[in-house]
Amino acid sequence: MRNFISVNHLSEEEIFSIIETAEEFRHGETRNVTQQLFAANLFYEPSTRTKMSFIVAQKKLGMDVLDFHSETSSVRKGETLYDTAKTYEAIGANILFIRHQDDTWYDNLLQTIEIPIINAGAGKGEHPTQCMLDLMTIYQEFGKFTGLNVAIAGDIKHSRVARSNAYALQRLGANVYFSGAPEFADTTLDFPYISMDEAAATCDVMMLLRIQHERHEEKYVDKDTTYLQHYGLTTERARRMKKHAIILHPAPINRGVEIDTTLVECERSRIFKQMANGVYVRMAIITKLLAERGFIHDLTKERKKVASY
Amino acid sequence: MRNFISVNHLSEEEIFSIIETAEEFRHGETRNVTQQLFAANLFYEPSTRTKMSFIVAQKKLGMDVLDFHSETSSVRKGETLYDTAKTYEAIGANILFIRHQDDTWYDNLLQTIEIPIINAGAGKGEHPTQCMLDLMTIYQEFGKFTGLNVAIAGDIKHSRVARSNAYALQRLGANVYFSGAPEFADTTLDFPYISMDEAAATCDVMMLLRIQHERHEEKYVDKDTTYLQHYGLTTERARRMKKHAIILHPAPINRGVEIDTTLVECERSRIFKQMANGVYVRMAIITKLLAERGFIHDLTKERKKVASY
Amino acid sequence: MRNFISVNHLSEEEIFSIIETAEEFRHGETRNVTQQLFAANLFYEPSTRTKMSFIVAQKKLGMDVLDFHSETSSVRKGETLYDTAKTYEAIGANILFIRHQDDTWYDNLLQTIEIPIINAGAGKGEHPTQCMLDLMTIYQEFGKFTGLNVAIAGDIKHSRVARSNAYALQRLGANVYFSGAPEFADTTLDFPYISMDEAAATCDVMMLLRIQHERHEEKYVDKDTTYLQHYGLTTERARRMKKHAIILHPAPINRGVEIDTTLVECERSRIFKQMANGVYVRMAIITKLLAERGFIHDLTKERKKVASY
Repeated sequence: MRNFISVNHLSEEEIFSIIETAEEFRHGETRNVTQQLFAANLFYEPSTRTKMSFIVAQKKLGMDVLDFHSETSSVRKGETLYDTAKTYEAIGANILFIRHQDDTWYDNLLQTIEIPIINAGAGKGEHPTQCMLDLMTIYQEFGKFTGLNVAIAGDIKHSRVARSNAYALQRLGANVYFSGAPEFADTTLDFPYISMDEAAATCDVMMLLRIQHERHEEKYVDKDTTYLQHYGLTTERARRMKKHAIILHPAPINRGVEIDTTLVECERSRIFKQMANGVYVRMAIITKLLAERGFIHDLTKERKKVASY
Repeated sequence: MRNFISVNHLSEEEIFSIIETAEEFRHGETRNVTQQLFAANLFYEPSTRTKMSFIVAQKKLGMDVLDFHSETSSVRKGETLYDTAKTYEAIGANILFIRHQDDTWYDNLLQTIEIPIINAGAGKGEHPTQCMLDLMTIYQEFGKFTGLNVAIAGDIKHSRVARSNAYALQRLGANVYFSGAPEFADTTLDFPYISMDEAAATCDVMMLLRIQHERHEEKYVDKDTTYLQHYGLTTERARRMKKHAIILHPAPINRGVEIDTTLVECERSRIFKQMANGVYVRMAIITKLLAERGFIHDLTKERKKVASY
Repeated sequence: MRNFISVNHLSEEEIFSIIETAEEFRHGETRNVTQQLFAANLFYEPSTRTKMSFIVAQKKLGMDVLDFHSETSSVRKGETLYDTAKTYEAIGANILFIRHQDDTWYDNLLQTIEIPIINAGAGKGEHPTQCMLDLMTIYQEFGKFTGLNVAIAGDIKHSRVARSNAYALQRLGANVYFSGAPEFADTTLDFPYISMDEAAATCDVMMLLRIQHERHEEKYVDKDTTYLQHYGLTTERARRMKKHAIILHPAPINRGVEIDTTLVECERSRIFKQMANGVYVRMAIITKLLAERGFIHDLTKERKKVASY
């Protein structure tokens, strides 16, 4: 694995290996880079969670962090992503973390940039580390994916989470359903649509999506409760969920829109647990990429070596 | 002490203990955290001094620093302070430093966030670490507070420094006076008003406040010298101050408005010394909070233990 | 050397000494500060390359980095550069790196700030660390400056690179020519102007400058190829360059304006090598300044000591 661009590129074995390494980090395992390494975070779109989560992961692995602010950078002088990425490589970055508004910003970088690149979000395309942390959280809960009913509910069309997650979960054996307002349906993705009432009644995992206000030309959603009542998770619907069913949300949350505010930290909610898992899963992914370059100890390989004695 | 929100919450003993620890740091004492700890700085309002002072303090104690830029964060996607704070906690922050435009932003955080919170400025409310560094600077000079005449002069009404300082100084035995333009008077605070001429003649400490241009609907103050002549510290007034009287200002300074520009670095001025003290006093406060969680050596306790043998 | 403000202030011996130290860093030499030191980066203008290059240099030398964002700092409250610089010094910065739009921002700082100051760009004035990295890159290639023909081509008038480089190269024995559109000529600098065709035919070093769109009242250059054909480096002109001639550009590059996009990474181009050299040359400069204060091992002195035994 030279870069980390899409969960579609991973074998099932690789997915489980990342989750396993992430679980080891969660249980206190520590690893350090073998020399001074610079992690460069090129975020062209706003982010709190993903960026900070990556930075914590980088620092926990002992890396030096290079930040980037598109507002005060040469982007304002018209510099392209390619030239900026090449620049960071030239001045000594050892790994790039990129979020950019273009759905396929990585296309012209993968063959030309030598250092590993991690996709931290690609327009309305993919957000594979979010997908991996969602998978980790589900696996923690159920110990499997096969046969699980997963509803992905909300603004499917504009979400980069929906796409990554739907395909990955289906491949791992889950039954994936979409739910949401008709104007948010994505007709290019072939998954069955069900109502929120049906989703609440039948699903093991209720994966809510954020209404992407900032991606809409006009605001679809007023701050009244119409959307919540029709397409969101109300307390009433949450009550009708299966006993062990859980609630996920990639956050930031529009409280009272996708979800009733009282549910955000309810017993079923794994929303803040997802964030904690995000750090561990990102540590695992970075570890995998750096290990291939000889810059870090690869836990998995060491474990296998020991096991084979 | 679980959090550091207001100087009013501190006993006199705690105030002196913080000053004492800060003095030890000033004299070269060093302390380090006992494990990797993340300090998250959530500043929703502009700051140079306070933010950088906190970051230097954090790094001197060996902490890892997480920065936050409200302009490029999920705040732009409508995320609340509560959700942002919970997020930082979830991804591994061990202590939060928050400046926010709301006077009581901490109200709904103290019971719900587990990690310690330090108030780095609350709207027009309090700014307790500024208060502590002012107290430290005064104590350095006079070795006491009892009987000192302190004038707090300027934009009382919009200042979060005035409020914190006036009550703390009064409690510690100082005689506190307010001075300034009538439109800047705060009728909710019960301290006597005196003229700048009287303040200059009688006070040991002349504590100037910044005209908070950015908090005024319209600009009260033109860049002429009218304000300075009537309500500011002119060189002429400075000449009439008591022999050992000192000048304080929390900065940034409006040169030629609150104070004649030649006085900023005059012999009486402790303005840049205040900034230096700010780092030490913040180190002391962080030490106190982390020591309670077992994350750092508490100098004071160790000292007392040794003393009791 | 107390500060690093202009290459004009350096003796030829000092220039070569910096290049030599930079080469040592490039070949793997490492040096560390002898105590915790804070590097403060005050950039009042957008920058990717220079700022990140400085930060990498600082971290490679083991320094702690203090960042600064003019948009979210007290600059928004009207604080002057002088007061901001004094503030950073007061809170513990050990060295300042400043980029500011004023051509001579350092004038009132050099006598008043105790800690070393490095000029990271001064309006349309100088950019001495860019000059040093250009010199290093040329010296790497040719092992000398004497007799080299160097064309500096493009927006001479608005460039802080042209000025620094032209004088330094001339002093070191190179023949310096200017080239570019008549409206970009700087009549205050006394160097001969030649056409791009002549420059291509005769020069060893083709040093292209960026069209400073952000410094022009209106955009001089449309994104058509008129400018490129008349005043830029086309593939056709590049073909006619001397066998060992090289192409330099300080970047960010306006692809298709100053230079044909296919030439950016051609065999002649040293553009990304310049960026890599930038880190080493900045490490060398910082080392020189800190060594004078006893904060780092000075390689050069140690070498000479050993040699003299």
